Amino acid sequence: MQPADLGLGDSSLHRYLDGEFWSLKNELRGLLGGCPLFRPRYDLSLDEMRTLTFQRVTFTMGLPLLKRAIQDQVEKTRNFVSRSLVIGEVLSIADMATGVKCGIIYWLFGGAIRNLGGPAHVTQWLQPLQEQKYTGMFAMTERGHGSNVRGIQTEATFDFSAQEFVIDTPCKNAEKMYIGNAMYGNYAAVFAQLIINGRSQGPHCFIVPVRDENGSLYPGVTVVDMMHKEGLHGVDNGILRFDNVRIPRENLLDKFGSVAPDGQYHSPIKDKSARFNAMLAALTPSRLAVTFQAMGSMKLGLTIAIRYSHSRRQFGPKAREEVKIIEHQTQTLRLMPHLATALALTFAGRYASTLLDEDIFRGKELVSSRTLQALVAGLKAYSTWENVSCLQDCRECTGGMVVVRELLAQYTKQCEERPVSSVLRNWAESGSDRLRTSFLAFNMDTVGNLTFLLKAVHFRERTLQRGLVARIYYKVMTEKEDFFSAWNSCLHHITCLSLAHIHRVSLEQFCLAVRNCPDQEDQALLKKFCLLYGTKLVFQERAWYLEHKYLTPMTSMRIRRQLLHLCNSVKGDALTVISAFNISHASLHAPIAGIANPKAAWGLYPAPQHSLAGERARSPWPKLGAKL
Amino acid sequence: MQPADLGLGDSSLHRYLDGEFWSLKNELRGLLGGCPLFRPRYDLSLDEMRTLTFQRVTFTMGLPLLKRAIQDQVEKTRNFVSRSLVIGEVLSIADMATGVKCGIIYWLFGGAIRNLGGPAHVTQWLQPLQEQKYTGMFAMTERGHGSNVRGIQTEATFDFSAQEFVIDTPCKNAEKMYIGNAMYGNYAAVFAQLIINGRSQGPHCFIVPVRDENGSLYPGVTVVDMMHKEGLHGVDNGILRFDNVRIPRENLLDKFGSVAPDGQYHSPIKDKSARFNAMLAALTPSRLAVTFQAMGSMKLGLTIAIRYSHSRRQFGPKAREEVKIIEHQTQTLRLMPHLATALALTFAGRYASTLLDEDIFRGKELVSSRTLQALVAGLKAYSTWENVSCLQDCRECTGGMVVVRELLAQYTKQCEERPVSSVLRNWAESGSDRLRTSFLAFNMDTVGNLTFLLKAVHFRERTLQRGLVARIYYKVMTEKEDFFSAWNSCLHHITCLSLAHIHRVSLEQFCLAVRNCPDQEDQALLKKFCLLYGTKLVFQERAWYLEHKYLTPMTSMRIRRQLLHLCNSVKGDALTVISAFNISHASLHAPIAGIANPKAAWGLYPAPQHSLAGERARSPWPKLGAKL
Repeated sequence: MQPADLGLGDSSLHRYLDGEFWSLKNELRGLLGGCPLFRPRYDLSLDEMRTLTFQRVTFTMGLPLLKRAIQDQVEKTRNFVSRSLVIGEVLSIADMATGVKCGIIYWLFGGAIRNLGGPAHVTQWLQPLQEQKYTGMFAMTERGHGSNVRGIQTEATFDFSAQEFVIDTPCKNAEKMYIGNAMYGNYAAVFAQLIINGRSQGPHCFIVPVRDENGSLYPGVTVVDMMHKEGLHGVDNGILRFDNVRIPRENLLDKFGSVAPDGQYHSPIKDKSARFNAMLAALTPSRLAVTFQAMGSMKLGLTIAIRYSHSRRQFGPKAREEVKIIEHQTQTLRLMPHLATALALTFAGRYASTLLDEDIFRGKELVSSRTLQALVAGLKAYSTWENVSCLQDCRECTGGMVVVRELLAQYTKQCEERPVSSVLRNWAESGSDRLRTSFLAFNMDTVGNLTFLLKAVHFRERTLQRGLVARIYYKVMTEKEDFFSAWNSCLHHITCLSLAHIHRVSLEQFCLAVRNCPDQEDQALLKKFCLLYGTKLVFQERAWYLEHKYLTPMTSMRIRRQLLHLCNSVKGDALTVISAFNISHASLHAPIAGIANPKAAWGLYPAPQHSLAGERARSPWPKLGAKL
Repeated sequence: MQPADLGLGDSSLHRYLDGEFWSLKNELRGLLGGCPLFRPRYDLSLDEMRTLTFQRVTFTMGLPLLKRAIQDQVEKTRNFVSRSLVIGEVLSIADMATGVKCGIIYWLFGGAIRNLGGPAHVTQWLQPLQEQKYTGMFAMTERGHGSNVRGIQTEATFDFSAQEFVIDTPCKNAEKMYIGNAMYGNYAAVFAQLIINGRSQGPHCFIVPVRDENGSLYPGVTVVDMMHKEGLHGVDNGILRFDNVRIPRENLLDKFGSVAPDGQYHSPIKDKSARFNAMLAALTPSRLAVTFQAMGSMKLGLTIAIRYSHSRRQFGPKAREEVKIIEHQTQTLRLMPHLATALALTFAGRYASTLLDEDIFRGKELVSSRTLQALVAGLKAYSTWENVSCLQDCRECTGGMVVVRELLAQYTKQCEERPVSSVLRNWAESGSDRLRTSFLAFNMDTVGNLTFLLKAVHFRERTLQRGLVARIYYKVMTEKEDFFSAWNSCLHHITCLSLAHIHRVSLEQFCLAVRNCPDQEDQALLKKFCLLYGTKLVFQERAWYLEHKYLTPMTSMRIRRQLLHLCNSVKGDALTVISAFNISHASLHAPIAGIANPKAAWGLYPAPQHSLAGERARSPWPKLGAKL
């Protein structure tokens, strides 16, 4: 595709959204968009996809623009973090796997050397990395320690006589896991407990050779291919094991802690915990890269979904052309808030990256900007959640209208049959308990009572139904709107009613199933989950109940506490329930669930203590009265 | 894997959850679990995956148990719907693609014949289908009409002289799209407008030969392969086009409308709309199958996630063994409600299928059970939404703790500096406006005012922070709990605080970006999205604001209306914003977004009227005051 066909544009808004890096981003968009390697492929095997990704990475990192960015990182040129991040965003949009792999090799591995190493490390390692003489990987996460990095178990023991560190994986939980570029990379930045004279100085980072330039593994290193990564096959994740691999003393990245030839440990930070925090803080910019990748995905998904919504037509006023689906209320309600969020993330991400650049430019250690670290960590979680929810909404289309048409028809019929004061009658009816649930004699006070929950969901359904009829009647009869536009302006209301209806039926059926359960123990167990389900339904809609004064602020807070309490109290019962789902191991084939899978032998975690079959882990009946 | 290794169990609860079909389900689980064909494969090309799926379908449908189920469908044996649905659930757990394809061939195609055809059709078509002499597909959805089936445009014109129907695709929007089994199937149940003497009698269903037993297409039929279907490569979706394909008069499935040799149309239902509803209603059981598939996925995902949570350890009290992650409050809060929902769906699904079976057994036409149709349609939407959210939660792990540790540290520092009545001071401070946002002089009343929204998110963050400090202080100092368990019992509170913090910063940065925008038009546009973003944040948490009496029920309802109104008012601006995202067509490669993709030429929809590059579609400033 020629750059002219790329559909790239220019306006004040284009420039404002891309900020000071507008021309940089546009240049990169043009280069990647014009490169045949980046044409999307879905037809490749795992190996072919990995090979293509490697070629894409090589092409990308060979671009003068990218070489300059790496050089900026070496020289800590002004704003180099922000520049790297926007490059990462553009790369991820062109191809997520390329974005991820470049991030691993140049920002995680390269960043470890730059931020945790001394000047000699930078000279020795970053120059050839820039020239693509070799590639690296970032080996922090272990099987047993992902979020809790401080507890990693890989060991780097100092051998005084040889002036070497011995890198070792002492147990299965210490294996380095989900390591990107593991099937190609030559060197790994390995986090390990630094042990001198039998005493650990906490986690430090070491450069460990993994395979030579021909791709042959060095002795003592084992790599297990984690194979397929659905949706991201281009990223080769693997597991690394080290069996007493010896590396020179100089391979310790020693900015925050060094070992002298005589074995003396020295660190500018005395406290072990503070030292570890300083190391992690130095990696903050890499964490922010995830936010920029997520933002890139949101922009891509929203661009597709919004363009489609402005083109595709479906439904509309009778005997007229169907309307564009963007005209449907639910469509804008689903897409527009995500678009606003993508914008908010654009500016919040820029804010965070600017703060990082300023700190670095001023020579401030990142560990002292704890506020900034909190912001970056929070943005990572927030942006990836928003991304998932955004892309899911982009995929789904509007639905559920059939349900409500029927509920309205029912209502109309009722009204026809009882023309006089039918609304009042209906009100009275919805207040009474038509659900024949009085059999449920739970010995609990109001909120923790199934009857209370059933009445609540029933009240909500009837109120929404009555309100919808009134709104549509008013719009059509009084305001003379045509039915389509009256219906459309109530579409959110309609969707709520659909779900309220299903919630009520589901809770009712659950209650009946509890009542009819022949085994007393089973019944008690199911009762707890039924209570949890009803609590969840009311909790989800507590705003509505508060608005309609069905709940007081006090009872609403009680619902929240009840939900928390119930969730905690059934976690043992959960094993009993999933066991009764009776899913054969052949279908599970999930090593993380303790079911061995010959295709992924590396993934096995121990089975939970209660086996799948038949046994039960009973929890006591939740003490609702006492704790809430 | 031998049946003995399958981990299937038996208990009163196993039997209660599977209901009356416990032994049927278990037999099928054993048969599929023991079949080598069903071992999971991730290493196959698209063609290989499709071939394997075809073999799995053949194996499955060759099982006496499945043959019996199809025979039950023919004979309308008691409870045949419920039996089919639980079979579908077990199949989907063993392999979703197999479940989907069996559903297409035997329940959608077979169901169309059974429910829309006459006795002769059943004899002629269902017998060889059972014997796997051929396979079928279900061709209802068109490019232009997915949800709005009534508007399909494929034509079936009666040719009196030849005693044939002429099946034709008059335009691109009339192409049959997303048709499963399109690359293998021999016959299609095609929905088309029945046209006699130039007049349409509405959509009817016809059996159209697509390819012979050797797989060669019949003249006039074009099939386009839709190729890859990420995560479900085993299902071959395709597009069908008919160019005046002639079929015998007898191929009209004529239960709800028949054409006599003399061209006279006859239907037991006079009203065209009622007739169409009757046809759709006859297909209700197939719709419920989606709920059973979704439920199966939830059970599978939950089984893996809960087993893992009961095994994997991370974090814990100092100097003690790390705790199982199921012990973390957020873990149970995320998983247990989904488990309760899976149970609720089990019973609600069973209820719906039993009602269907009862109606069918009594010979009642399904169209007269509109309540039941509404229930089934609603369950389909609800269960698939719950499934997506459940599987996503199953995938994610706990996170975001770093943020809150920092916010707490900040707070503690403030308290140290001002030991006297620091809580009170902090309260006063959180009430005042520290955000320097007074520059935002939006001329709107309270709720529609950015300052109001900023203050609201700020108030929430500070209140959550203050509350968390107080709770942990109380637990540790007064109740003498250890810090880990105090922290853990506040984990939900902590996560809320993390997000509240990020929400506040994001909204602040968005506001600043609006203020600093140099172009007036751009500024006005961004202002609208900023207002939308703030409204969304407050709307999402309106329950909290209500509980804390920051919003009254009245203002809360206003927030909802404001959100709806804003979403609607920015849908044109949305095109301007996505254009300014400046994503190159090479990256978009999304034919549904109007960007041609040579790999999927069939997918092209028209581009939206405003092009990607630079142009803008301005919407007027939302009239907040007037409409709310």
